[in-house]
Amino acid sequence: MEQQGETPGPDGQQLSKKALKKQQKDAEKAAKKAAHKQQAEQKQDAGAGEQENEDVAEGRYGNLPLNQSREKVQRYICKVCELTSELKDKRVWIRARLHTSRAKGKQCFFVLRQQKWTVQALAAVGDNISRQMIKFIASITKESIVDVEGTVRTVDQKIESCSQDDVELHVEQVWVVSASAQRLPLQIEDASRPEGGDDLATVNQDTRLDNRFLDLRTTTSQSIFQLEAGVCQLFREYLIGKHFVEIHTPKIIPAASEGGANVFEVTYFKSKAYLAQSPQLYKQMAICADFERVFTIGAVFRAEDSNTHRHLTEFVGLDLEMAFNFHYHEVVDLIGDMYAEEISMVSKQFPAEPFKFLEPSLRIEYIEAVAMLREAGVEMGDDEDLSTPSEKLLGRLIKAKYDTDFFILDKFPLAVRPFYTMPDANNPKWSNSYDMFMRGEEILSGAQRIHDPEFLTKRALEHGCELEKIKGYIDSFRYGAPPHAGGGIGLERVTMLYLGLDNVRKTSLFPRDPKRVTP
Amino acid sequence: MEQQGETPGPDGQQLSKKALKKQQKDAEKAAKKAAHKQQAEQKQDAGAGEQENEDVAEGRYGNLPLNQSREKVQRYICKVCELTSELKDKRVWIRARLHTSRAKGKQCFFVLRQQKWTVQALAAVGDNISRQMIKFIASITKESIVDVEGTVRTVDQKIESCSQDDVELHVEQVWVVSASAQRLPLQIEDASRPEGGDDLATVNQDTRLDNRFLDLRTTTSQSIFQLEAGVCQLFREYLIGKHFVEIHTPKIIPAASEGGANVFEVTYFKSKAYLAQSPQLYKQMAICADFERVFTIGAVFRAEDSNTHRHLTEFVGLDLEMAFNFHYHEVVDLIGDMYAEEISMVSKQFPAEPFKFLEPSLRIEYIEAVAMLREAGVEMGDDEDLSTPSEKLLGRLIKAKYDTDFFILDKFPLAVRPFYTMPDANNPKWSNSYDMFMRGEEILSGAQRIHDPEFLTKRALEHGCELEKIKGYIDSFRYGAPPHAGGGIGLERVTMLYLGLDNVRKTSLFPRDPKRVTP
Repeated sequence: MEQQGETPGPDGQQLSKKALKKQQKDAEKAAKKAAHKQQAEQKQDAGAGEQENEDVAEGRYGNLPLNQSREKVQRYICKVCELTSELKDKRVWIRARLHTSRAKGKQCFFVLRQQKWTVQALAAVGDNISRQMIKFIASITKESIVDVEGTVRTVDQKIESCSQDDVELHVEQVWVVSASAQRLPLQIEDASRPEGGDDLATVNQDTRLDNRFLDLRTTTSQSIFQLEAGVCQLFREYLIGKHFVEIHTPKIIPAASEGGANVFEVTYFKSKAYLAQSPQLYKQMAICADFERVFTIGAVFRAEDSNTHRHLTEFVGLDLEMAFNFHYHEVVDLIGDMYAEEISMVSKQFPAEPFKFLEPSLRIEYIEAVAMLREAGVEMGDDEDLSTPSEKLLGRLIKAKYDTDFFILDKFPLAVRPFYTMPDANNPKWSNSYDMFMRGEEILSGAQRIHDPEFLTKRALEHGCELEKIKGYIDSFRYGAPPHAGGGIGLERVTMLYLGLDNVRKTSLFPRDPKRVTP
Repeated sequence: MEQQGETPGPDGQQLSKKALKKQQKDAEKAAKKAAHKQQAEQKQDAGAGEQENEDVAEGRYGNLPLNQSREKVQRYICKVCELTSELKDKRVWIRARLHTSRAKGKQCFFVLRQQKWTVQALAAVGDNISRQMIKFIASITKESIVDVEGTVRTVDQKIESCSQDDVELHVEQVWVVSASAQRLPLQIEDASRPEGGDDLATVNQDTRLDNRFLDLRTTTSQSIFQLEAGVCQLFREYLIGKHFVEIHTPKIIPAASEGGANVFEVTYFKSKAYLAQSPQLYKQMAICADFERVFTIGAVFRAEDSNTHRHLTEFVGLDLEMAFNFHYHEVVDLIGDMYAEEISMVSKQFPAEPFKFLEPSLRIEYIEAVAMLREAGVEMGDDEDLSTPSEKLLGRLIKAKYDTDFFILDKFPLAVRPFYTMPDANNPKWSNSYDMFMRGEEILSGAQRIHDPEFLTKRALEHGCELEKIKGYIDSFRYGAPPHAGGGIGLERVTMLYLGLDNVRKTSLFPRDPKRVTP
């Protein structure tokens, strides 16, 4: 994750003050050279209207030509997040977007934005800055990318509107690297406002998603996807630390192996194939192939015509599968601990999002959950599946009773689980399966799997599966198969629930649902 | 990666000797309990033919019932790789596959295999071991998974056929956890032999792939996928260290945006969609959305009817894209350094595979490569693309001249690159694009991209692209876009070339080609 507060050099390493000074000198030299060149080009440009009078700022502003990698300029470019009072009175170069600007007589104030960080810049007519230059700066369209050279000055009063609130940049040069069109399909400021707040404009979801490359520029989006990348990385690190091997399973599969209704069909040369609804069968085959502990991160596809806040037709599945020795709780405990570690890490980075959890994780059996729900007035059978409202209610009941936003529900009714789920040893009404819940929504579903080919065949038939479609899968258990269990997680859903967001589309970079395959 | 030589406990941590002793005692207790239980079950089992005479080994062997997680046994199970002379005279439990077995009168020698590691075990008739037990062990089918308790004994003469060559296991108990069928579709030993060697049996590629879960059990396959996971992890770590953010791009896309011929069509509810041939357009949109440096690892799809050693219809793409300040060589250098780091890491782990490379990486221009090829007798034009034989030849020429298996070929002819490639600033015959080569095969293709929407439109039209299909992509450059470059790598191809393998199917867990979508 991006580390704020450091002063990384171009390769991400800390720069000494001396090196910084040297780079600044180099940068100034290079800038002068570039400026002269630009100057010459501008003079040739008859269309430029800035040359009415002599311009003291000549060569200090303008539009750069399209960058085609003409020159290797040796100039250190600071990040906006690096601009703090530590750089007081230092001259720096910044490349950032023009977030807002406001010209006022002989001055122009503007805000430069880079990812989540903003800084105020000020250009004022003086020895090196002309009226023409102020006019030029004021004319730069919002969202344009600019190179700005300036001196870092500390300010007496905090600049509330910027992330860098104790400094501003006194401008020496302003060059437009890439100009934005005048009319934006949405305003970044509008897209940054909380929805359903006051009367100020917000942006509706379809407009956001139609112009996702703009919507993603908001501080919120930047944070969401930084977090999502972090979640993914934490999962991986945890699992690799536990000797899991990362594998990659095929997305194109020969048959609708996990139920035919919700599967996308692919034209595969002269025949048909399908998109995998999960890596389930393949990660189990990897277990039969002695990988012992595997995980895989990749696209999974569900042709479900559900237009809800939590369904996507394509999402990122984080799946794991693990051989165990004696009891599937070996796997449940490992996953529970993984979440505990994740949650405590995330809580440190996003302290604004309180997330309660217990260590070890709370694990309750399905039958207890049913009892709690019944006591709260829900009418349901012992082996009936949980409805979405019941899940939410259960989350609240458990939060009230145990003060945790995360819990594991164990021993689901066999009837509501896939055919490959291992029944309970003592009572085949139940099964060795579990869901994990975050803020009252399921984030992981898993189970011990049947590793005996005859038993698996029997269960597949009872579920009405077509055996020839899963022959390869069943055969993989015929030559010695270890007891194993695992689970699958939807990355977007986990991120949504960590952050308490209202819609899974906010955590998918380019979401896909039954009505949207664009952009 | 799996770390050989350690003595990890069940959660991967080192165990003290004391803890080990305690675990062994616990294990013995648990084993006795299990044995008695099993005993009782076997007595009830009228079909068991082992009770002709009194059996001194009663309760020390047999078939375990299907593991349905009945009990949480507190028993530490050693890994085969942990069995070294350090555990001399210690009693341990092992869970492994029966690799081979050979009964000889009152003795039975058998080899236990776990992933890449093997150990010899010996059962001999004695106080605790009966003839019936020897008979039972000899009857266990190869590839069955067994729990074996035994004492680690050092041996005088190295056991050449096993990875654990200085110890053997003197057996106390043998229980079958999961029995293999008698007839295997392929023999692991045959699949483990080098192809085209002597007269001994090998397994042809289709048989291997039809029974991939068996083929993957070989030492070679286990090593390949451990390496592949490591390659993936090194890429990620390097890029995360350079402040790249991991993103996930959609695989279902609205139009065949990168050329219509090689794209798979998907039935998307009532309309049509396509499978992404690369994350190209999306990673660039992420750059336009201020992510600055992104990478993504995921499935990419090519509906190319090529049946060669190096083409797959689905593979794992490792793609990166990065905004740069002045020159696309900022990106080329970063990628080149990444390979240098990867190669030196891999060389340490796989010292048997010599791989020459230079630091910094060798970079030569296309026109130089053409000159070298012409000098070697190849007839080709300046801006003609390299044929596969020419690539291979170039690899050999460069190896001979510069002694490196890795090099960067820069400044490709514009005509042979995609429409979004930035032309060279000085001569539009060339372009700011590059390929990276490993052992004479291209592993990464990349370029500076055009970040100006008008110029991009012009180039798209010149390439005959349908503009309405890429409108969203082109529009993303209208609101300020940083200069940027990137590249894409095929994970399976890189792994193949690192290891000097002859076929990319060996590095794909479940390969897909025009003729294969199974298993």
